Amino acid sequence: MMFQNETSYTVKEKIDESQIAILPIGAVEAHGPHLPLGTDNYLAERLAEKVAARTGALVLPTLPYGQVWSLKNFPGSINITNESLIRFLFDMGISLYEQGFRLFVMLNGHLGNAVALKEAARQLYNKFPDFRVLYLFYPGVKQVTEEVRETPTAHTTYFHACEIETSYMQYLAEEFVDMSKAISDIPHIPPSADITPIPWEMFTSSAVLGDATLATKEKGEKIIKIAIKNMVQLIKEMKGE
Amino acid sequence: MMFQNETSYTVKEKIDESQIAILPIGAVEAHGPHLPLGTDNYLAERLAEKVAARTGALVLPTLPYGQVWSLKNFPGSINITNESLIRFLFDMGISLYEQGFRLFVMLNGHLGNAVALKEAARQLYNKFPDFRVLYLFYPGVKQVTEEVRETPTAHTTYFHACEIETSYMQYLAEEFVDMSKAISDIPHIPPSADITPIPWEMFTSSAVLGDATLATKEKGEKIIKIAIKNMVQLIKEMKGE
Amino acid sequence: MMFQNETSYTVKEKIDESQIAILPIGAVEAHGPHLPLGTDNYLAERLAEKVAARTGALVLPTLPYGQVWSLKNFPGSINITNESLIRFLFDMGISLYEQGFRLFVMLNGHLGNAVALKEAARQLYNKFPDFRVLYLFYPGVKQVTEEVRETPTAHTTYFHACEIETSYMQYLAEEFVDMSKAISDIPHIPPSADITPIPWEMFTSSAVLGDATLATKEKGEKIIKIAIKNMVQLIKEMKGE
Amino acid sequence: MMFQNETSYTVKEKIDESQIAILPIGAVEAHGPHLPLGTDNYLAERLAEKVAARTGALVLPTLPYGQVWSLKNFPGSINITNESLIRFLFDMGISLYEQGFRLFVMLNGHLGNAVALKEAARQLYNKFPDFRVLYLFYPGVKQVTEEVRETPTAHTTYFHACEIETSYMQYLAEEFVDMSKAISDIPHIPPSADITPIPWEMFTSSAVLGDATLATKEKGEKIIKIAIKNMVQLIKEMKGE
Amino acid sequence: MMFQNETSYTVKEKIDESQIAILPIGAVEAHGPHLPLGTDNYLAERLAEKVAARTGALVLPTLPYGQVWSLKNFPGSINITNESLIRFLFDMGISLYEQGFRLFVMLNGHLGNAVALKEAARQLYNKFPDFRVLYLFYPGVKQVTEEVRETPTAHTTYFHACEIETSYMQYLAEEFVDMSKAISDIPHIPPSADITPIPWEMFTSSAVLGDATLATKEKGEKIIKIAIKNMVQLIKEMKGE
Amino acid sequence: MMFQNETSYTVKEKIDESQIAILPIGAVEAHGPHLPLGTDNYLAERLAEKVAARTGALVLPTLPYGQVWSLKNFPGSINITNESLIRFLFDMGISLYEQGFRLFVMLNGHLGNAVALKEAARQLYNKFPDFRVLYLFYPGVKQVTEEVRETPTAHTTYFHACEIETSYMQYLAEEFVDMSKAISDIPHIPPSADITPIPWEMFTSSAVLGDATLATKEKGEKIIKIAIKNMVQLIKEMKGE
Repeated sequence: MMFQNETSYTVKEKIDESQIAILPIGAVEAHGPHLPLGTDNYLAERLAEKVAARTGALVLPTLPYGQVWSLKNFPGSINITNESLIRFLFDMGISLYEQGFRLFVMLNGHLGNAVALKEAARQLYNKFPDFRVLYLFYPGVKQVTEEVRETPTAHTTYFHACEIETSYMQYLAEEFVDMSKAISDIPHIPPSADITPIPWEMFTSSAVLGDATLATKEKGEKIIKIAIKNMVQLIKEMKGE
Repeated sequence: MMFQNETSYTVKEKIDESQIAILPIGAVEAHGPHLPLGTDNYLAERLAEKVAARTGALVLPTLPYGQVWSLKNFPGSINITNESLIRFLFDMGISLYEQGFRLFVMLNGHLGNAVALKEAARQLYNKFPDFRVLYLFYPGVKQVTEEVRETPTAHTTYFHACEIETSYMQYLAEEFVDMSKAISDIPHIPPSADITPIPWEMFTSSAVLGDATLATKEKGEKIIKIAIKNMVQLIKEMKGE
Repeated sequence: MMFQNETSYTVKEKIDESQIAILPIGAVEAHGPHLPLGTDNYLAERLAEKVAARTGALVLPTLPYGQVWSLKNFPGSINITNESLIRFLFDMGISLYEQGFRLFVMLNGHLGNAVALKEAARQLYNKFPDFRVLYLFYPGVKQVTEEVRETPTAHTTYFHACEIETSYMQYLAEEFVDMSKAISDIPHIPPSADITPIPWEMFTSSAVLGDATLATKEKGEKIIKIAIKNMVQLIKEMKGE
Repeated sequence: MMFQNETSYTVKEKIDESQIAILPIGAVEAHGPHLPLGTDNYLAERLAEKVAARTGALVLPTLPYGQVWSLKNFPGSINITNESLIRFLFDMGISLYEQGFRLFVMLNGHLGNAVALKEAARQLYNKFPDFRVLYLFYPGVKQVTEEVRETPTAHTTYFHACEIETSYMQYLAEEFVDMSKAISDIPHIPPSADITPIPWEMFTSSAVLGDATLATKEKGEKIIKIAIKNMVQLIKEMKGE
Repeated sequence: MMFQNETSYTVKEKIDESQIAILPIGAVEAHGPHLPLGTDNYLAERLAEKVAARTGALVLPTLPYGQVWSLKNFPGSINITNESLIRFLFDMGISLYEQGFRLFVMLNGHLGNAVALKEAARQLYNKFPDFRVLYLFYPGVKQVTEEVRETPTAHTTYFHACEIETSYMQYLAEEFVDMSKAISDIPHIPPSADITPIPWEMFTSSAVLGDATLATKEKGEKIIKIAIKNMVQLIKEMKGE
Repeated sequence: MMFQNETSYTVKEKIDESQIAILPIGAVEAHGPHLPLGTDNYLAERLAEKVAARTGALVLPTLPYGQVWSLKNFPGSINITNESLIRFLFDMGISLYEQGFRLFVMLNGHLGNAVALKEAARQLYNKFPDFRVLYLFYPGVKQVTEEVRETPTAHTTYFHACEIETSYMQYLAEEFVDMSKAISDIPHIPPSADITPIPWEMFTSSAVLGDATLATKEKGEKIIKIAIKNMVQLIKEMKGE
């Protein structure tokens, strides 16, 4: 159910019944020649719909801006600082709690948001100990991803506009993918990228971290289905079901 | 053109050519029994598309949360404080400027955002004197609104979920309006509402400020067309055309 | 009664009896060749005295600095940012509440302060729901002003060092007005001034928005008497009288 | 010269000629039964006038609120936090510098402001290395005070509403002193007051720290004349005269 | 070389020669019955000395407080919020840069600091693009740790007071370890700990995450030697050697 | 007792028994050719140990960074802004209170920290009225210092790397003093240093304010013993013993 399509006359009962709000949050960020700037928004949004369908959660409008320090110098990227993002999410959480929600699921499509989401969640926990705030970024897909991928990952944590993320998009938002433009660009990410600030233009000009040409809808489906299953399960556990 | 559907390979040229970014910004807020919580988001978004079509502007993804202090205690409202909203928009503006935009149009669908938008615009002007930031909220429609409306306005500045705003929705986002639920509820807004903080639950239980049953698509069209014409003209003037 | 002339031995009883504090707040800002930089301070202060006389309020010392972004580049202007002003007023409000006041009237002589005053008032309301904070800027004078003025207004919202404000000064603080220097300077304020930050030096070199030579004490008296009447009434209503 | 009585047409030349702005800053604070709440404001203001007369400085309107943590629980006290006060003064300093002043004298009538004044001065120095900001609180009067006083001081640093401060008021603002109400109240200030936060109600109910009945205009004159001489000299040295 | 043991007469030359500052940063935090609260401080400090010896870096005094949200309710833990820690480190970085350092190594002994360190590093990079700030937490020890450990890890990211960390302490700061008190306590960490704020008292009463009785100096040595080798190499690469 | 050498299993009982935490806080700052940059840290730390021995207090790890605006341009100085320092100490205080401490003694070795310590103490008092926070900087040594010193003080408040502070170091941390490098350098501190920001490089190149060659361990001992006696007494009084 899309929260913003409800009216104030109908929504109260639904909040009380569901108690779960899902916020899709992504970013506007360079994703190579074949994926749109809004890739992370589309992923978060489509995932949220599927997760909501199985959990009875209410889907909030997508917050389409996030923290993109690493890629902020690429064409099209829009960066929100962690500090601003944390405050924004903290305010949202207060309203959601006051509205009667007790489970606030931040369904994240952009790894760069992880720090802000976790911090906002903790600040909300400090304020409302009975308010559970979740930050979800493709939980529990490590194994299936290893099985599915044909090329090694470019980095232990990052994946971006590559075989994997492109597959996600093919499965979840195919209409925004132009596979004819997909490229393979496996950069050498210097080890120092894990221990010092390194804007990505230092090691890639495409923002693609892998071989996007190998992406398929089937690969995406395999991983995403696991991700959804895990998210649904985590939410249900949190709700005490 | 929807900014987030571009890729980083195609967007740079379009930014340089257009130099204009439009951000639709609304709110999630109670709008009576016949209009959805996301009314201000839909209005801002649809207006942005129309204005962009005539100005060559790039439309950013909608920021669907705003400052709703007055209605925050109504079911479904989500409130962002002015301080958080200002910071968020300030960060966005910095990125847009660095990306090459020179005209940042905040197309506002929610009066409650006005203060934050103006403040963010000023802070960006202080930082980048050659960056024009606009905040637009139905400019120049006073006269046509007076002509169109059949009932007097409930307040000199506010209008909300009433004959006028409902007409806007009928014209711009008809699919989200349920006229069968429309009501007439003309509250007595105490004069003190202009001079002291008064949450709206003090004078209305419906959040409707007028007779929504009188709303028509035609009324909406008349006003919105003027608003669009004015916005287009203001943007062109700003761009020096 | 001037609050700061009381002693701590006498003031407690008066606070408890009155419960109303009036803070005159103005600005130091360019007001043309015939009005002093402190015009808004003198207006706020004199009004406060008159309003206090009729409401039993205690008059706090004038806060003589305000937000003057628009005119900050004119000689003599001193600008306080909204953020600083809000914090300052918020602190004051806390003290006033703790001292026993339940009605805090910010009597404003400078339109540029309006945003900060309203925001401070809301933050205080959030903190102390039984604390009423008022922000008053010539309430309810629209009609009488239209009747009195001989020249059309230069702008729908702004008036500055013009026929009207100069008349106010003639009535309230004649000794600071030098009518021999009064000028008529009706600038073309571009419509964009309502939708984007435009420092006033872009459209005026005098900071006078109208024909100050037409100002008279009588005009001032007519409007100010209405303003005072309205302020007194609003305060009494708030106090539940 | 009173800055706020100038107009924007006359002030520029005077700023360029003088380059010195004096801000009287005090507080609203309990001062016993014989001195008004605004004592520190009157002292700062009268001193500023005298110092300006001898240095050609322009006198800004008094900032009549300050940091009064220690006495905030006494009737009539109004407390501004250090953080808010620092920001406010920092903003003021920026405007004064941009207006052409190169010497900003914060003439302080209230010891509690000392921390905020020094911090604001340093922050302004960091921003504008050629901007001299002074914070003056009766400089160089230690010796003469020892000579003049008939009773020992209640504390090495604090003096308040006592023989000394009352004498200042008699000399500078006699009309606000009611010697018939003056009392002698020499509290035992615990040594811990220097090493831990101790609100003054812990050791005094009058807020008088000494024997105010011994105050005389002559005593005040002797000390104040030295203070003024020192302030004038410091300002002239700073100006390079 | 211990930075704080130098004098201002000798240090300038050493800064210019080395250009590398190492800040050991840890935390005061519960570490079970056999390890001291200052475990992370001792580890960071001892590592820093060894790394400095091989890189010519200057070792700053240990910052012995860090972000310990997860364990803050355990006896002895002291928590600094991320926001405060970031500001503190940002200030330090500014001074180090102004002193002539061009490589600022934050050698971290406490995983909970990771977010603050990275954020501070980015903010410093934004301010000084030629200033390299490193955040190091046992880099590149994953493989050797897998080889060394006899028991599986309790969590993919966390390790705490367990076989591994206790081995570190035995190798680096043996005098603070009391193996007679070491326990094995392998908690069930709920999967939700990765996706929602969960204070550790929810799943452990000892704060030990593993079998500390299996710790040996030899295990510690094997891992720590790799960690040091990697840190030295990363620093040298950064320095362009 | 060194707090960080305790374990979480042993510390709770000791906290409850003692209720007193001592935080040594100093700075990294230029102290002439004969004293190390960490002088204020060593002094604070050694004093803390002695005071703890007599009061049963628990000694926290030294916070070795402080506010050194005045000397920040001297080689080796590291400056933390007041604002950052206050936040850091405020966070620490919250944890200490929650851990069960009721007396938080900030034992200060660096005068420049005084403002931040006092402000943090007040903010903690506002939050926890039953939490006593002390800031101690050689209390009550004025008289003995006058007796001991052979040369007049260079300034009424400051002393730095001089006869006195060097004597402190000889008594408390002899191993870090190199008397063969001690110099006599009595600068002319301009009177304006008390009333306007003046970095110390304006009046000294050595950062020594006096004749360090006259320092002796005996002088140090005499003063420090008094300081310790006074600190012990103040703490005991605070604890109600």
